[in-house]
Amino acid sequence: MSFNITILGSSSALPTSKRFSSAHVVNIHERFFLVDCGEGTQIQLRKFKISFAKINHIFITHLHGDHFFGLFGVISSFSLLGRKNDLHIYSPGNLQNKIYSVINKKEISFNIFFHRLSHEGKEVIYESKSIEVSAFPLKHRIETYAYFFKEKHKERNIIKEQIPKYGLGIKDILRIKQGKDFITKEGKLIKNTDLSVPPFKSRSYAYCSDTKPFNGLVNFVENVDILYHEATFAKDLKDIAEITGHSTSEDAANVANKANVKKLLIGHFSTRYKSTNIIYEETKALFENTFAINDGDVFSIPLEREQNKQ
Amino acid sequence: MSFNITILGSSSALPTSKRFSSAHVVNIHERFFLVDCGEGTQIQLRKFKISFAKINHIFITHLHGDHFFGLFGVISSFSLLGRKNDLHIYSPGNLQNKIYSVINKKEISFNIFFHRLSHEGKEVIYESKSIEVSAFPLKHRIETYAYFFKEKHKERNIIKEQIPKYGLGIKDILRIKQGKDFITKEGKLIKNTDLSVPPFKSRSYAYCSDTKPFNGLVNFVENVDILYHEATFAKDLKDIAEITGHSTSEDAANVANKANVKKLLIGHFSTRYKSTNIIYEETKALFENTFAINDGDVFSIPLEREQNKQ
Repeated sequence: MSFNITILGSSSALPTSKRFSSAHVVNIHERFFLVDCGEGTQIQLRKFKISFAKINHIFITHLHGDHFFGLFGVISSFSLLGRKNDLHIYSPGNLQNKIYSVINKKEISFNIFFHRLSHEGKEVIYESKSIEVSAFPLKHRIETYAYFFKEKHKERNIIKEQIPKYGLGIKDILRIKQGKDFITKEGKLIKNTDLSVPPFKSRSYAYCSDTKPFNGLVNFVENVDILYHEATFAKDLKDIAEITGHSTSEDAANVANKANVKKLLIGHFSTRYKSTNIIYEETKALFENTFAINDGDVFSIPLEREQNKQ
Repeated sequence: MSFNITILGSSSALPTSKRFSSAHVVNIHERFFLVDCGEGTQIQLRKFKISFAKINHIFITHLHGDHFFGLFGVISSFSLLGRKNDLHIYSPGNLQNKIYSVINKKEISFNIFFHRLSHEGKEVIYESKSIEVSAFPLKHRIETYAYFFKEKHKERNIIKEQIPKYGLGIKDILRIKQGKDFITKEGKLIKNTDLSVPPFKSRSYAYCSDTKPFNGLVNFVENVDILYHEATFAKDLKDIAEITGHSTSEDAANVANKANVKKLLIGHFSTRYKSTNIIYEETKALFENTFAINDGDVFSIPLEREQNKQ
């Protein structure tokens, strides 16, 4: 039951040989979701050994080049490799037009479904039996969305030995998984906590880039296990951050604190910083569990059971 | 008086973390010409420390993605860095439309001049006082051109000590540089070879990718100092090469031999080859002075004087 994030790119507008442009891969239960797709994403996917074939959904935050120029190569290579599976791409703006102006649609070996985002507030844009992805508008120079990935709430897990012991049928098991007690043929009440253990907690990951600080973001990412929040600048460049629609170390830490997140990843560092230590130290001073991301980093969220209610 | 080629990418359609897609930089007298611009070219330029500002001319062979997808990032980054100098881009097809469908023309900080190629035979497409670039159609699945870079023919170099010795004026010097003898006031004939040394040889580089073998290419690249010729496949895959419009090891060596080139670079290797040894060995068996290129390789053509005519 994997839930991990691989960093493919951690630079801002200008990529370097050590920091490619923005792209993360979120692996939830071996479904791979690509979030942003900067130039060279296909190269990083190969380098970090992530199977092209497992990616069926791509989420683009906005149409600045450092967040989507890798799509041309990704789509072309998927096609050259003979892909047949549908590919779903979510983004604001007319991404479809840009893609098909560069790549001949007829030469693509698979179907692409473009899902154009244009909404206010939080909206669920993808869901499967066990996963839900929602999008929320950010405040950048152009239309931009944050994405929130979470496991759906799970049922309790039955203690297997109790099935033969109490002769539990399928209907009994379904009820017990929902937290109900069980009454034996003899009329004896068996408490649910003796028959099942609490479910695993729903894990979650939020990706917020690019944005300047604004009220409302805190609610969207509240209590998330891992928050990725851009921190393009150190706090002394607050003015430039404001003008360019970006955040500072301090802004990222403030969101993490107010939203009570468990872990904060910062990235999208301006290439003006030879070392990102200053941004890291400033953020960590305000929010202890901070990580400054590098290309190739992997962050996992471990499985953890909920507590039985007292 | 530099003349060297830096390999930025050596893979074919599918880039890997070790081999990026096609791109070479040709440095002639500190003018930098970019030939092809596969995805990640800007990253490789940074990695191999080639100044963005020195590139004013880009030559695209054809509009398959692995030869031009890097242009979006290159143009965006040039602009983000505040470039003011004109950029000239040469290519077949409607490249301008593709670029401006993805990047808002109004947001580019400099002028781009698109030079659309559409001709038969060899044509000079760029020239300066000392450099000439010509283009020649190849045989690929879509319209594709080879590029030939050469120094223009140079004049003889005056032997400086002879200027005061014979009291040479500017007009005399210009005549001597053209190979003329000199007659002193006293009527004595001084042979040109006593007054000047032969010029440096004109150096040249040809870039041929992608193409299947055809008559005519040999003439275009005749006597070139360095020929880059694609060798996507080993010779046992001649059939696939033919179908896909590519060349084998043998094809590349044949052109090098027939055209009497001095050095052959092969690249654009199919990712089916874990090692390119087989392609290298097959080519070298037919043409000794062969090099299988890797990203980051630099090939220089040394200055060498012509011989005095006997």
